[in-house]
Amino acid sequence: MRDMPHVLMITLFFIGVEGFLDYLRQLDCSEVEVYAIPEGSIVFPRVPLIRVEGPVGVAQLLETTLVNLVNFASLVATNAARHRIVAGNSKILLEFGLRRAQGPDGGISASKYCYMGGFDATSNVAAGRLFGIPLKGTHSHAFVSSFMSPDEIVEKSLRSADGLTSCEDFLGLVQSWLNKIQRTKVLSGGFGDTNLSELAAFTSYALAFPANFLALVDTYDVLRSGIPNFCAVALALRDLGYEAMGIRLDSGDLAYLSCQARKCFQAIEKEFEVPGFGKMSITASNDLNEETLDHLNKQGHEVDAFGIGTYLVTCFAQAALGCVFKLVEINNQPRMKLSEDVSKVSIPCKKQCYRLYGKEGYPLVDLMIGENEPAPKVAERILCRHPFNESKRAYVVPQRVEELLKCYWRGSPVEMREDMLPLKDIRDRCTRQVAQMRPDHMRRLNPTPYKVSVSAKLYDFIHFLWLNEAPVGELQ
Amino acid sequence: MRDMPHVLMITLFFIGVEGFLDYLRQLDCSEVEVYAIPEGSIVFPRVPLIRVEGPVGVAQLLETTLVNLVNFASLVATNAARHRIVAGNSKILLEFGLRRAQGPDGGISASKYCYMGGFDATSNVAAGRLFGIPLKGTHSHAFVSSFMSPDEIVEKSLRSADGLTSCEDFLGLVQSWLNKIQRTKVLSGGFGDTNLSELAAFTSYALAFPANFLALVDTYDVLRSGIPNFCAVALALRDLGYEAMGIRLDSGDLAYLSCQARKCFQAIEKEFEVPGFGKMSITASNDLNEETLDHLNKQGHEVDAFGIGTYLVTCFAQAALGCVFKLVEINNQPRMKLSEDVSKVSIPCKKQCYRLYGKEGYPLVDLMIGENEPAPKVAERILCRHPFNESKRAYVVPQRVEELLKCYWRGSPVEMREDMLPLKDIRDRCTRQVAQMRPDHMRRLNPTPYKVSVSAKLYDFIHFLWLNEAPVGELQ
Repeated sequence: MRDMPHVLMITLFFIGVEGFLDYLRQLDCSEVEVYAIPEGSIVFPRVPLIRVEGPVGVAQLLETTLVNLVNFASLVATNAARHRIVAGNSKILLEFGLRRAQGPDGGISASKYCYMGGFDATSNVAAGRLFGIPLKGTHSHAFVSSFMSPDEIVEKSLRSADGLTSCEDFLGLVQSWLNKIQRTKVLSGGFGDTNLSELAAFTSYALAFPANFLALVDTYDVLRSGIPNFCAVALALRDLGYEAMGIRLDSGDLAYLSCQARKCFQAIEKEFEVPGFGKMSITASNDLNEETLDHLNKQGHEVDAFGIGTYLVTCFAQAALGCVFKLVEINNQPRMKLSEDVSKVSIPCKKQCYRLYGKEGYPLVDLMIGENEPAPKVAERILCRHPFNESKRAYVVPQRVEELLKCYWRGSPVEMREDMLPLKDIRDRCTRQVAQMRPDHMRRLNPTPYKVSVSAKLYDFIHFLWLNEAPVGELQ
Repeated sequence: MRDMPHVLMITLFFIGVEGFLDYLRQLDCSEVEVYAIPEGSIVFPRVPLIRVEGPVGVAQLLETTLVNLVNFASLVATNAARHRIVAGNSKILLEFGLRRAQGPDGGISASKYCYMGGFDATSNVAAGRLFGIPLKGTHSHAFVSSFMSPDEIVEKSLRSADGLTSCEDFLGLVQSWLNKIQRTKVLSGGFGDTNLSELAAFTSYALAFPANFLALVDTYDVLRSGIPNFCAVALALRDLGYEAMGIRLDSGDLAYLSCQARKCFQAIEKEFEVPGFGKMSITASNDLNEETLDHLNKQGHEVDAFGIGTYLVTCFAQAALGCVFKLVEINNQPRMKLSEDVSKVSIPCKKQCYRLYGKEGYPLVDLMIGENEPAPKVAERILCRHPFNESKRAYVVPQRVEELLKCYWRGSPVEMREDMLPLKDIRDRCTRQVAQMRPDHMRRLNPTPYKVSVSAKLYDFIHFLWLNEAPVGELQ
């Protein structure tokens, strides 16, 4: 930190509350520099995500804001990336969490950082508008149950997709398709009557959104009602040149129901000679999380898109991330927070941080060195030491060296700082970095810990300082 | 719902996007009525917290907003109340969660609803300003480690509490007390030297806030450094008529350290004849939650106040509450969402909701009845039935009947609605309601489930409707 450290407290005492408020009024970040690892990067415990330099009073006032903004954003982006890894790249992942998020901003933040972590779209319209995230959603159960019967549909005509013709009785067309489906017994569950209020809801939705017909099929009974009703409407739409978007399953055995739905669509394709109908998109939702995705994969399923809410946006499996903000140097003097718990001991000094890559292109180790030490060089051997465990050390010959901390704020005028990238580019960086990791670091069960190290010089200094600061114990 | 249900979708189809936007522009809540159980009340699964009546399009637009606002607020208030129950009413509970909360609003919401649920204060200054919640906090580890030595303290004079005298060398006074403490060996850990940069930090803090001296004592070593340094500053302050506020422990074995700290304070009281010093307040923090509070109680401790953050504000033990918003009636027709999972089946119809109290003043059962059924009456026997389990039913003779849903919004002009109480009054209601519950409903392990029931008439109607809506299965 570059300035007098104790101005804040002593000023308060002598100048009183008004003087302190004046001091606060004239504060700004013109003497602050902020270095950070670029957003969307993979990071590891102990490597500083952000380094703040400046007058201690100002830096302290930034603490809670920075920690609050970094903690949840990093947590939920990580959670999204984990869901993406389990789901695989071929699936569409939709964030559906706003209603269960921790407050309105919890929802907005979650939508933004889930997209960054690898989701494809959100149902949160405000987040879509604020950040340009693609929007995807379906209708609600309430929409279906708000209908009583097909008689409620007053205006039944629908213009064809090419605009050339118009079907005066789209409802009649739907009903005739439903009769054909039932008569030919093409669907296994389609022997009895379907729920006609559901048919009315689907027809009404298709009349309003003929090019975006995605039906929630589990309000009454998926196989006996939802799927036959959906197929009738989808086939009627097809007669007018529209392609239905698919179905959403929101309850029950998603593996079984998705496979049954796929069979139904394939049977329709075959029976009525409608090419491509068998590939109709199936979206699944209902309290999904990493575990359920993993189990669905093991069981086998026919789901194309997952809508994930509660477990994703609240990070249910671990609802908080423990990033902290520690003083590491003041007036060129290194400072260190001690603790009986080694994981809480901070690494002193203003540091440079590097990621060293190996021959196969994977990151090998992150390395922290003192401010004035020479940077590690490509093809030069360097000793990397575990910061606290004496025996853990390794020589590394990096094939590529990446400096991690970039300058994002340098007082005023703002110059020589990194560009802030568009969200989409940050998302791409995240996807690239996840793909670039060695697989054993990323596996769900017993992953190999990624190594975080310090230079030999920094190692020695940490341990010299530690012994110097800690009182010697006395057993009695 | 009082209005034409399907206006929204059909309008969209015929009037196009611009017409739909015009429709949205003229929307308001003038035809909406909102009934709710007053904020700060204890509520149970299945009893509606809020009933919204109005045009279906408007009511549907309110869904996500209401569910988002109710879910996290109810969850975190419940979590706070649970912490209060475990801590007991004699302890001070401080909410310290902003830096780990799920985004900035997650933190603000948490501060507000933790106070409502029974916490005494927050360290979140914005929440204090917005809602009038008492503010409490201490200094950081960084404040302590920003000091190198007592030489950094330039201005050492301190005026006495009564303003009559001034101590020109407060630091010298502190140092003389530290010498006395070390010479008399009154403190068990106080044989060696304490950390003098810590002593400088405490002295500087006391100079700035002589009437609010609360020291974080675990930056270097609680028993060998933090406590002796604190006692020296507290005794020096006492010479000038100030009373120190106490210490905060933020790591290590809180049960042991708090007991040792208490012994130190009592030894100081005795050795130097300072009445009341033994009762010095001890605050504990460091990843506390319901479980750790319970274990501390079992071990025995001397903590007076708990600062609780991460586990409280993120509701770590269960990070989401699953309130939903369901259509129960439209155009005077009851609607019901079916599911293979009984817990997801909604109870149809616009309902009246009551809480029935027994002879001993405890709530006995919540009862939902149809809109047109007569309200339950004091001293009149009424049959209460489990909504889905045929054999669970009981006659109840209430000694008191409380109507749960009150009107909070009745279109425009806004009239005849309940007052919105100040936060403090809502907090009081919450505390009263928790205290009023029968203890076996509130115990942590295997609590007796509180009964939620429907009238015999509503029971029959639910089951008639269910059989009517659900397709009959067919085994093949």
